[in-house]
Amino acid sequence: MAAGTTDNLSVVLHGPGDLRLENYPIREPGPNEVQLKMHSVGICGSDVHYWQHGRIGDFVVKKPMVLGHEASGTVVKVGASVKHLLPGDRVAIEPGVPRELDEFCKTGRYNLSPTIFFCATPPDDGNLSRFYNHNADFCYKLPHNVTFEEGALIEPLSVGLYACRRGEVTLGSRVLVCGAGPIGIVTLLMAKAMGASQVIVTDMISSRLEKAKECGATLTLQVNKESPQEVASKIESLLGNKPDITIECSGAQSSIQTGIYATRSGGTVVLVGIGNEMATVPLVHAAVREVDLRGVFRYCNTWPLAISMLASKLVNVKPLVTHRFPLEKAHEAFEVSSKGIGLKVMLKCDPNDQNP
Amino acid sequence: MAAGTTDNLSVVLHGPGDLRLENYPIREPGPNEVQLKMHSVGICGSDVHYWQHGRIGDFVVKKPMVLGHEASGTVVKVGASVKHLLPGDRVAIEPGVPRELDEFCKTGRYNLSPTIFFCATPPDDGNLSRFYNHNADFCYKLPHNVTFEEGALIEPLSVGLYACRRGEVTLGSRVLVCGAGPIGIVTLLMAKAMGASQVIVTDMISSRLEKAKECGATLTLQVNKESPQEVASKIESLLGNKPDITIECSGAQSSIQTGIYATRSGGTVVLVGIGNEMATVPLVHAAVREVDLRGVFRYCNTWPLAISMLASKLVNVKPLVTHRFPLEKAHEAFEVSSKGIGLKVMLKCDPNDQNP
Amino acid sequence: MAAGTTDNLSVVLHGPGDLRLENYPIREPGPNEVQLKMHSVGICGSDVHYWQHGRIGDFVVKKPMVLGHEASGTVVKVGASVKHLLPGDRVAIEPGVPRELDEFCKTGRYNLSPTIFFCATPPDDGNLSRFYNHNADFCYKLPHNVTFEEGALIEPLSVGLYACRRGEVTLGSRVLVCGAGPIGIVTLLMAKAMGASQVIVTDMISSRLEKAKECGATLTLQVNKESPQEVASKIESLLGNKPDITIECSGAQSSIQTGIYATRSGGTVVLVGIGNEMATVPLVHAAVREVDLRGVFRYCNTWPLAISMLASKLVNVKPLVTHRFPLEKAHEAFEVSSKGIGLKVMLKCDPNDQNP
Amino acid sequence: MAAGTTDNLSVVLHGPGDLRLENYPIREPGPNEVQLKMHSVGICGSDVHYWQHGRIGDFVVKKPMVLGHEASGTVVKVGASVKHLLPGDRVAIEPGVPRELDEFCKTGRYNLSPTIFFCATPPDDGNLSRFYNHNADFCYKLPHNVTFEEGALIEPLSVGLYACRRGEVTLGSRVLVCGAGPIGIVTLLMAKAMGASQVIVTDMISSRLEKAKECGATLTLQVNKESPQEVASKIESLLGNKPDITIECSGAQSSIQTGIYATRSGGTVVLVGIGNEMATVPLVHAAVREVDLRGVFRYCNTWPLAISMLASKLVNVKPLVTHRFPLEKAHEAFEVSSKGIGLKVMLKCDPNDQNP
Repeated sequence: MAAGTTDNLSVVLHGPGDLRLENYPIREPGPNEVQLKMHSVGICGSDVHYWQHGRIGDFVVKKPMVLGHEASGTVVKVGASVKHLLPGDRVAIEPGVPRELDEFCKTGRYNLSPTIFFCATPPDDGNLSRFYNHNADFCYKLPHNVTFEEGALIEPLSVGLYACRRGEVTLGSRVLVCGAGPIGIVTLLMAKAMGASQVIVTDMISSRLEKAKECGATLTLQVNKESPQEVASKIESLLGNKPDITIECSGAQSSIQTGIYATRSGGTVVLVGIGNEMATVPLVHAAVREVDLRGVFRYCNTWPLAISMLASKLVNVKPLVTHRFPLEKAHEAFEVSSKGIGLKVMLKCDPNDQNP
Repeated sequence: MAAGTTDNLSVVLHGPGDLRLENYPIREPGPNEVQLKMHSVGICGSDVHYWQHGRIGDFVVKKPMVLGHEASGTVVKVGASVKHLLPGDRVAIEPGVPRELDEFCKTGRYNLSPTIFFCATPPDDGNLSRFYNHNADFCYKLPHNVTFEEGALIEPLSVGLYACRRGEVTLGSRVLVCGAGPIGIVTLLMAKAMGASQVIVTDMISSRLEKAKECGATLTLQVNKESPQEVASKIESLLGNKPDITIECSGAQSSIQTGIYATRSGGTVVLVGIGNEMATVPLVHAAVREVDLRGVFRYCNTWPLAISMLASKLVNVKPLVTHRFPLEKAHEAFEVSSKGIGLKVMLKCDPNDQNP
Repeated sequence: MAAGTTDNLSVVLHGPGDLRLENYPIREPGPNEVQLKMHSVGICGSDVHYWQHGRIGDFVVKKPMVLGHEASGTVVKVGASVKHLLPGDRVAIEPGVPRELDEFCKTGRYNLSPTIFFCATPPDDGNLSRFYNHNADFCYKLPHNVTFEEGALIEPLSVGLYACRRGEVTLGSRVLVCGAGPIGIVTLLMAKAMGASQVIVTDMISSRLEKAKECGATLTLQVNKESPQEVASKIESLLGNKPDITIECSGAQSSIQTGIYATRSGGTVVLVGIGNEMATVPLVHAAVREVDLRGVFRYCNTWPLAISMLASKLVNVKPLVTHRFPLEKAHEAFEVSSKGIGLKVMLKCDPNDQNP
Repeated sequence: MAAGTTDNLSVVLHGPGDLRLENYPIREPGPNEVQLKMHSVGICGSDVHYWQHGRIGDFVVKKPMVLGHEASGTVVKVGASVKHLLPGDRVAIEPGVPRELDEFCKTGRYNLSPTIFFCATPPDDGNLSRFYNHNADFCYKLPHNVTFEEGALIEPLSVGLYACRRGEVTLGSRVLVCGAGPIGIVTLLMAKAMGASQVIVTDMISSRLEKAKECGATLTLQVNKESPQEVASKIESLLGNKPDITIECSGAQSSIQTGIYATRSGGTVVLVGIGNEMATVPLVHAAVREVDLRGVFRYCNTWPLAISMLASKLVNVKPLVTHRFPLEKAHEAFEVSSKGIGLKVMLKCDPNDQNP
């Protein structure tokens, strides 16, 4: 592309395994939209899954779709009705935008709105591009002391934050986090930031537990062939008490069972990990001890809070980024991400600014 | 027994099938106890189950135990520290009394206290007797316009009330009640009293659904061999919407599945019925739609509210009592109750007053 | 106006006392709007206040404004993006429509959004017209068994419903309602529908208390020159207990004081009535007994619930309408309404259908 | 006192200004009590107030009363029914013990129980003694890594913790604390531990604000003669937003007014400071913006959580102790405490162990 021309290089998925770098048209922002010059976009497990399989459950990529939804950038144009943003503003992007003010939106649970727009969930395009238009109400201004990459990381942080909120983690909570993958790690970070006094993390892989330790886990437990009851019993011994809240991030049936056995009466098991459609669980054991099971669907109302937290340096998320690639090297970035090396791979969309 | 003698005829279970009428000693009330002349005691499904099997799950009758826990009577003596009750007071009895002020009690969830005393749960004696001592803080004065039998019915009503509270039933709620047995019926009554606009009740037996209709069900649905998804779909068609709250009173796995499929996103399934230890359920379907699963263990903090409701005639529970027997005919009463004829069998403990 | 011509007769306020009937232009509905043929519009105290004074507090009528915000009508046209409504649908209109998805909207409290549109609050036009365009997401379809007038009454009902919700009225609540004007009456109706066991209503005027009695008040108390403490004490005597919740609908300082003295420890005083800017109240008495003070600003999330309630006949609001006038007789209607005769004056906007 | 004799030196208040050191009898613990060898007892503002004035409001010292209620010690004897404690256990003492299981206790708000026992509130004796008996359910075992003084500090910490809980402080909250006295400081510490992103503290005295800065205040504001609106406006400028929650710890009317003006719509003002009986406040301004006013009465359910927090080193409270005196020097300790020098004066009750 000739120097001086404004291109809009975009990472487009055409089908399973068929990822292409294409120059997409740049369209004018609508009345309530802003046009963003993208800066940093993290690769999520779901991006990799769409790339490899062309679908996630019932969501099937039927036409070319731009990937990416963990993102931040700079406002370059504003639509006619936009009042709170100006060109030059640095923003973090919340990828889910409700399309109508239905009952879910009106009651503050817009993530459950069945017609919601969501970046890089078919058929909605994501923002792994040079330029991207987004609803202005879902772009949040970043303070000067929060970097673009921190802004992009708000998306995965939101999963952990929302899970902790659903579990009502608060000062002094004892929390069990099942699974030390990326979601488990952000959940751990958020639980600590909310005042949890003890967070114990379980996983089958010791290197992941090492990472959890580095990120502040009070205790870790490597699980292997033990029964769920045995794991629950070990957890109680280690903590000195049953955990108040279990946040299950693996989706494994045995781990959900462990969560139910492990959690104290009157506590909560939050289901974050997605496993098989049907699960066999000790439901009576949960019911008669009033251990509630609560799911999460993405998140809502997390961006302002996360920005507030990042600006106040309540948590350090910078070490989560382990790899960076310019947008042009998206294929390489997806390869690295798919191998599970490191934690977060960041794509840098602005050819003139590849800083964090 | 000779006239003028104070006997204490009691219904004592010695083992499976071995129910005896015995004259138990009357002991003096402790400092915080009242001695009650018992008036009306309902027979509960659990009483019948202990009689037939000598156990419910891990609760095993190992030594003779007096049955009965749905009860009301008149204070005849008060312990030294009792301040709010006087001889002559008519009271309803809450059968669960925490033995220590542990964290559950202190936070208002005393029903979860692991060391709680509970009438007619081994090894604790119940109150199917002429006389019975109970903790004064768990005896609630009945206003003059609430009968003894209404007072005794507060116990089963509490199950429905507490289930509705756990499900957050409120004005305008659409409620699905699975199962039209006694618990399903009281749940229906309570949901209506709390302002539910639509209550749909399901069962396999048409006569039970008739009863539900009489008790105010907006709609009923007889289920047979349909899949849980099919039942859920029928319920949505009938209501015109998915229910906000499902209260599952049958314990059947298929019915729990129906509840999960049927409940609207962001709603709640309350698990009241007790089925098999392990249940196979569409947990992902619940989780990604944030349909919460909440169990109940008995109830707490329901008596004052139920009395307030009965005194105000917000609900008519008198038709629930279909049979009455004097205490001496306890065997006959248990036989009738075990056959599932009618709804509630009431034992009348006071030989001089067998009125409702 | 000649037969066959579509006029748009509208009730326009030009300044204090200057109410005019004018033929307003009919504009095309926007993409997310519906055009409504108005049917029934109730006159609210605020309409009368604007008519008489040209302002309410900081809200000043600076340019001609159509009055009316308690309304229902029939969809005649739908904007391009409207999906859930069709011409012919009968709808109730929620008058407050947020203009942006700010933090208040996103968290389910859109009534607090500072930039909200609200019918007949300057400078926003109301709907006392033949035709009116409104945001489709804030028009709610009426079932066949709910009349237009019931639909229009949802607005005042919403005030009572929202106040009760803020006060957490539930089954068995004991409620004190201060003031038996229209707001006090709808609050009473809603408290009863939510299961309150006792509702005591106070006022200075005996005829209003008669009305409260007719509408289901358990008890009434005429207040005169007693001190707030004396009134509180009388209320406790009458109820047999302190009320759990006080809903203050008069705005009088003495009545707020009464509410604080009267409410039981741990209870709530809901401030609905608007009085002087500054109020002198026994704040320490409230604080050390943890009696919370909660205000209300209009309402949110009440229409679907109110429709559900009306369709289920949980409350009969029809008697609230005491006067009806065709739109052409708006002046007469405002005169009647301003005299406080009856409860609700309804204007009938459709010359071909003046039924309830 | 002769060596080898067990004395029970106690700090007894006989009337205003009449503090005496006396040897009180040691009585046997009741069935549910433990006998404690006292270790560390902090002097509270209320102790000083009783000493100086012989009363606080309606609570009047009519007979000799032992002072002290911020305390920790070691179990030396256990009553017959005590199960969870053994001689040798180090415990923190919650000074409020409900005397009956009334509705407040049963619903988890035992601090509101009108008949509650409370150390050093007339007529109940406190624990500034060598030995003291307390209800075992309100003695909480200290882990080895929590000192006796930290245990004693749980009492003042509980005030801050409970105030933050009433205000629903959580991750990312913006909090205004009015007043930088001891209660303001512990509230600040707790708000930070609960994840508040910004805490701004106001006071009239600059040295107190210095202390607040040292304890982690994000911002401080010295107030002087500005109007409440002006102070509110300054706070918004400094924070960049209105605070979500105001915790008023001064009791000054102007400060309560500031809190109402300053707090964002939908937020909460927590009233901790106690001022004059009547307060003149902009109640309409609070009501129409749904800024709730919530009081606190002491605290409930804070000890387990505070211990969990101290054991996890989530907050460092050790610097709060600025002076220590042996029990024998109680007069001197009260003099120092009354002068407002330093923050917390600790009395050391065990002659053989005067360590923190």
